[in-house]
Amino acid sequence: MPSRRERANAIRALSMDAVQKANSGHPGAPMGMADIAEVLWRDYLKHNPHNPQWIDRDRFVLSNGHGSMLSYALLHLTGYALSIEDLQDFRQLHSKTPGHPEYGHTVGVETTTGPLGQGIANAVGMALAEKVMAEQFNRVGHEIIDHYTYVFLGDGCMMEGISHEVCSLAGTLGLSKLIAFYDDNGISIDGEVHGWFTDDTPARFEAYGWQVIRNVDGHDADEVKTAIDTARKSDQPTLICCKTVIGFGSPNKQGKEDCHGAALGVEEVALTRANLGWQHPPFEVPADIYAEWDAKEAGSKVEGDWDRRFAAYAKTHPELAVELKRRMAGELPEDFAEKASAFVREVAQKGESIASRKASQNCLNAFGPLLPELFGGSADLTGSNLTLWKGCKPVVQEDATGNYLYYGVREFGMSAIMNGIALHGGLIPYGATFLVFMEYARNAIRMSALMKLRVIYIFTHDSIGLGEDGPTHQPIEQLANLRLTPGLDTWRPADTMEAAVAWKHAVERRDGPSALVFSRQNLPFHLRDDETEAAISRGGYILKDCMGEPELILIATGSEVGLAMQASMRLSEMGRRVRVVSMPCTSVFEAQSAAYRQQVLPRTGARIAIEAAHADYWYKYVGLDGRVIGMTTFGESAPAGQLFEHFGFTVDNIVATAQELLRANG
Amino acid sequence: MPSRRERANAIRALSMDAVQKANSGHPGAPMGMADIAEVLWRDYLKHNPHNPQWIDRDRFVLSNGHGSMLSYALLHLTGYALSIEDLQDFRQLHSKTPGHPEYGHTVGVETTTGPLGQGIANAVGMALAEKVMAEQFNRVGHEIIDHYTYVFLGDGCMMEGISHEVCSLAGTLGLSKLIAFYDDNGISIDGEVHGWFTDDTPARFEAYGWQVIRNVDGHDADEVKTAIDTARKSDQPTLICCKTVIGFGSPNKQGKEDCHGAALGVEEVALTRANLGWQHPPFEVPADIYAEWDAKEAGSKVEGDWDRRFAAYAKTHPELAVELKRRMAGELPEDFAEKASAFVREVAQKGESIASRKASQNCLNAFGPLLPELFGGSADLTGSNLTLWKGCKPVVQEDATGNYLYYGVREFGMSAIMNGIALHGGLIPYGATFLVFMEYARNAIRMSALMKLRVIYIFTHDSIGLGEDGPTHQPIEQLANLRLTPGLDTWRPADTMEAAVAWKHAVERRDGPSALVFSRQNLPFHLRDDETEAAISRGGYILKDCMGEPELILIATGSEVGLAMQASMRLSEMGRRVRVVSMPCTSVFEAQSAAYRQQVLPRTGARIAIEAAHADYWYKYVGLDGRVIGMTTFGESAPAGQLFEHFGFTVDNIVATAQELLRANG
Repeated sequence: MPSRRERANAIRALSMDAVQKANSGHPGAPMGMADIAEVLWRDYLKHNPHNPQWIDRDRFVLSNGHGSMLSYALLHLTGYALSIEDLQDFRQLHSKTPGHPEYGHTVGVETTTGPLGQGIANAVGMALAEKVMAEQFNRVGHEIIDHYTYVFLGDGCMMEGISHEVCSLAGTLGLSKLIAFYDDNGISIDGEVHGWFTDDTPARFEAYGWQVIRNVDGHDADEVKTAIDTARKSDQPTLICCKTVIGFGSPNKQGKEDCHGAALGVEEVALTRANLGWQHPPFEVPADIYAEWDAKEAGSKVEGDWDRRFAAYAKTHPELAVELKRRMAGELPEDFAEKASAFVREVAQKGESIASRKASQNCLNAFGPLLPELFGGSADLTGSNLTLWKGCKPVVQEDATGNYLYYGVREFGMSAIMNGIALHGGLIPYGATFLVFMEYARNAIRMSALMKLRVIYIFTHDSIGLGEDGPTHQPIEQLANLRLTPGLDTWRPADTMEAAVAWKHAVERRDGPSALVFSRQNLPFHLRDDETEAAISRGGYILKDCMGEPELILIATGSEVGLAMQASMRLSEMGRRVRVVSMPCTSVFEAQSAAYRQQVLPRTGARIAIEAAHADYWYKYVGLDGRVIGMTTFGESAPAGQLFEHFGFTVDNIVATAQELLRANG
Repeated sequence: MPSRRERANAIRALSMDAVQKANSGHPGAPMGMADIAEVLWRDYLKHNPHNPQWIDRDRFVLSNGHGSMLSYALLHLTGYALSIEDLQDFRQLHSKTPGHPEYGHTVGVETTTGPLGQGIANAVGMALAEKVMAEQFNRVGHEIIDHYTYVFLGDGCMMEGISHEVCSLAGTLGLSKLIAFYDDNGISIDGEVHGWFTDDTPARFEAYGWQVIRNVDGHDADEVKTAIDTARKSDQPTLICCKTVIGFGSPNKQGKEDCHGAALGVEEVALTRANLGWQHPPFEVPADIYAEWDAKEAGSKVEGDWDRRFAAYAKTHPELAVELKRRMAGELPEDFAEKASAFVREVAQKGESIASRKASQNCLNAFGPLLPELFGGSADLTGSNLTLWKGCKPVVQEDATGNYLYYGVREFGMSAIMNGIALHGGLIPYGATFLVFMEYARNAIRMSALMKLRVIYIFTHDSIGLGEDGPTHQPIEQLANLRLTPGLDTWRPADTMEAAVAWKHAVERRDGPSALVFSRQNLPFHLRDDETEAAISRGGYILKDCMGEPELILIATGSEVGLAMQASMRLSEMGRRVRVVSMPCTSVFEAQSAAYRQQVLPRTGARIAIEAAHADYWYKYVGLDGRVIGMTTFGESAPAGQLFEHFGFTVDNIVATAQELLRANG
C-alpha cells in the first residue's frame, strides 16, 4: 500500500510537472503543503466528487491561491471531473486549470483566490453561513447543516490587513467549525520573511479568541492528524500553525523563494523526482496511488447517508426541508416577484420625497419579510446606511439565528465575507458603508463580479451632498470605478421609485453583484406614467420628453435628476425642445437592444450629462460635442446646499450650459 | 492657576460648541481624549506654533480624524495661526476648520485624516522617516534629527486591516519613537463594540513586538504622564491603552454612541457646561487658561536651542547641514535636471526594446545615484516590480541608514506609510506592487493626491500582458480609476523613452503623486526626432504623422502603441492618412494649452483608441463616432501573446476596425 508520503508525492509531482510544462506557476506551496493536504483530504474532508454541489459538504479554501496546482491535483486525484489532460493544460487559454483557482470555472473550486487574504475572508463567510443556516434549519435530532470550513493560508495572507479584520471577527463570533492551516514556511517572494514579518502569529490569533495549535510539523501526518482532531473539538475557530518547507523535495530549491513562483527547471524536476523516489513519468500516477486517493465511493456513501437523514428531516419538518432546498438553490420565494412589484406600485402611489438611503430602508422593510435569506450588515455605519429593517435580528456568538451582522469598521473584511456567504449558499448578503469607503473593499467587490455572486452592496453618502464631512468622505471617482467593473450593476437611483426598482433588480439578479448607491440628502419624487415606470428597469429611460425631436438631451442620475428636470422646464419655457433621460444603471442600459438605446439617446440633438461625480465617465454618452456638468476636483467641507452651488450643480448653470451649447451648435 | 482638568475642559467646551454651532461633527472623541491631549501637548510635545515647519518638531497625528475639533482646539490654544473665528467657522465652506483635518489647509495639521486606520499608518511612515533621516544625518554629538511621533487612534482604526499591516511592520522595524494612544472607550458608531470587537488589543500589539502599557486611566493625568515617560524610554514602539469615556462631561450622552457623530444639542451642551463647571460662554476661554496653554514662547525657545545646535552641526559638518536643509525643503539636487536629461538622451540613443518595468529599473539606476532622498520599496514583489537598483540598501531594525524597505505583503500599509514618509520630509518614497493590487491600496493613493504629496507609485504587470496568472491578476478597470483621481498623474509608457520621461516628471513634480504603470513583457522602442522626444513630457503627442491632414488618428498607450504603429504602416500602405498619438499621461496632456491639444487631436479625422484596459475611459477622446479597442470583460489565464490575440489587440483588428470606421464615415 502506498505510504502517506507517496500519496503526497503524487501532488508534488503533478504540481511541479504542470508548472514545468506551462513554464509558469507556483510549485512551492503545493509541494510544501502536500502532506497536510493528504491528511486533510483523505482522512477528514467530507465531500463527494460526484456531486460538488452537495449542500452539506465541507468547504475547502486555498487562500494562498497561487498554489492552485495543489487544488487541481487534489480534485483530480480524488475523482472530480478534472482529467489528467486538464492538468497538462495548466494555465492555457480556456483550460479548466487557470493560473489561480476560479469559482464557477473549475468543478470543486469553492472560491476564486489569488488576491491574498481574501480566501481566509471567504472562509470566514462560509463558516458564518454554515453557523447561521445550521441554527435556522437544524432541529433536535436533525443536524442537516453540519460541516467544516477548512482553509490553507500562507505568510502573504497573514501579512494582509484583511486577515486581521476577518480573523478578529471570526473570533468574536466563535466560528468553531472554521479550521485554518497556516503554512508557516518562513518564505515570501522577497525572501526569508524575518526581515519584514516577525509577528508572533499564534499570540496574535489567541488575542482574537482563536484556539491556536502551535509548532505542528507540516510534514508529519500524525502531528497534523492530532491537530485536526483537536481543532474539530474546539468551540473557537482554530489556527493550526504548520512548519513546512516550501518546495519540499526539491534538493536545490526547497526552503528558498526560488521555488515560490517559477518552474523548478527540467534538471531540478528530475533531481526532485529522484529525491522523492517518484519514479513515474510526468502526469502518470500509478493505479494503486489513484486508488488510495479515489474519494468517489466514500463520497457517494457519505452523501447517501446524509440523503437518508435529510429524508427523515423532510418527513418531520417538510416545510423546512423545502425551504432549505429552495434557499440553497438560490431561488427566490415564488411570490417574491409579484409582491415586490406590488410594493413598487405602492411606492409610486406614495410619491415620497425622501433621501434615497431612506427609500432603500423602505425597500428592506418591504422585501425583508418576503426574503428570510436576506442577510444584512454594515461596517459600523448602520444608522447612517439605514440598513436595519424591522425584522432584523443581530447574529452574535451565542445566537446565530438572526439575519444581521454588525461587521465593525471592516469594509474589506465585510465584503469578502459576503462573498463567502454567497458562495456557501442559502443567504443573500447585503452590506453597507459610505460610497467613498468602498475603496477599502474595492478588490472584494471586484471578486464578487469575477465570481458572478449575488452580493448586494449598499453605498450611501454618494456625493458632495454628504456635506460637512468634507473631501475625505466625498466620493468623486468612485462611481466610475464601480461602473467600469465588468459584471457589476451599479445603480444610483433618483428617487424612491428608482430605489425600489434597483433593489428588486439586485435581489432578482442571479448572475452577479449589484452596488446600490444612495444619497444622504432628500431627493424629489418624479411623477411617471405606467410606461415610464416600467422603463426604469431598463437602466436608462426617458423621464420627461418634449414635443417632437429633442434638440437637447439632459442625462442625469440620482440627486442631479431633479436639477435636470427643473432645468428642462426652464428651457422649455424658453421654447427649447428638451428631453430628460434618467440613467440609474448604465450597465443595464447597455444590455438593452440597440433600438431601445437609440430611441432613448438618438444621435440628433445636443447632450449634457449632469452628475455630482467625476465628469470623465460621461463622455461615453455625450461625446466630443456634448458637455458634462460633473466634478474634476476633490470636494470641500461645507453644508451640502452650498457645495452643490459652489461646484455648479444648479439649475442656473445647467440652463446656461445648455444655452451656450445650443448656440454653439447653431 | 487653572487645573489640568480646567485646561482640558477648554478643549471640551470649544469642541462641543463648535460642533453645536455647525450642527455637525464629532464631539465624543475630543471630549474623551482631552485629558490625554492636555498632558501630551503641554508636558511633552516639542513644537513651535511660530514655525509649524520646524524640521525637528515632534509629529502629532489624529488618526481618529473625525475628532478634528481636538486638533483645532489644541492648535488654537497653543498659539498657532488659528483664531477663535476660525473655530467658529467649523465645517463651513473655505474655513480653516474643515470636517476632517486637512494637511496643507490648516496650519499645524500634519496629515489629512478621516479614512480610518490611515493616520496610524502615516505615523508609522513619519517615525520611519525620522529614524532613517536620523541615521543618515546625525553624527556623534549632533542629534539634529531627534523627535517623536505621537498618534491618537480609536477603535475604528484598531479594527481596520491597515492597522495590522503597519503596526506589524513598526514592530519589526523597532520604531521606538512612535508612541500611540489607544482611545479605548468601548464605543463605535454602531454602539458598544463588544458585539463586534473583542480583540485582546494589548496582546495583539505585543505579538507585533510593541511595548504595551495597559489599563491607563485616560482621565488621570498622572497615569498618562507615567505612561508617556515609560514609552519614551522604550526601544520598541509603544501602545498606551487609555480607558476613556467618550463625550466625557456630557451628563446624558457620555459613554454612549449618541455623542460620537452629532452635536450634543443646545440643552445637553448647557448641562455639560454645568457638569464640567465651565462657566464661560461659547468660544470664550479665560485669559489664565489661554496663558497656561500658550506654547509660543516655549516653542521659540526649544527651536532656538535646536538652531544653536544646528549651527554647531553646520560648522562641523557643513555639507551634511546643507544637504539636510535641501532635502527637508524638498528641493532636488541642482544638477538633477541636467543629468536626468542626459540620461534621457542616452536612453534615446540606446533604443532598447525591453519591458517597461525593466526600463523603470534602468531609470532607478540612473536617478538613484543622483538622489540620496529616494526611498524605495515593494510590497513583496521586488523581483517582479524591479524596484531595486544598484545602490539600494535595505532598512532593517538594527540599521536604518539604507534607502529601501521590504514592506512585505502590505500594499495599503506601504502606500499610507509612503504618505507618512513624504509628509515627514527628507525622503522621496517610491513603492510598488502589481497594478491590479493597487486596489488594496486605493484609498491611500487617493490620500496622496488629496494631500498633494510627492509619492511615486510603481505598478507593474499592467494588463492582460502579464499572461498566465489570469483574471485575478489582470488589471482592466484600474487604469481608468487612477486617471480619474484628481491630482494624480498616471503614466503608462510605451517604451524606454517614455519611461524615462515619466520617471523624471514624477521626481520633479512637487505638487502631487504619480503612478508609473509598467509592462511585464517587452515593448518595442520607437524612433523619434528631437521635437517628438521633447513632446513626450506633454503627456500626449504625435508619435508618427502622415502627410497632410490625417483622416484617422490612432490613440494608444503603453504596449498598444507598438500595435498602433504597425497598423498605421499597413494603413498607410493602403493609402490612408494616419496619425499615431501616444498618450502616456492624460492628466499632463489635459494641462497643455488648448492650442496644443487641438493640434495633436484635431476634430477632423476619425479616431480609434487602443488600450488593453477598460474601453469606457477612452470615449472622452474618441467621442460617439470613434472606436475603442479595449477591454470590457475580465481577462483569462493564458500566455500573453494568445491573450492579446484573443481579446483583439492585433494589427489585423486595428486595421479592420479602421477600414470599417473610415467606410462608415464615408
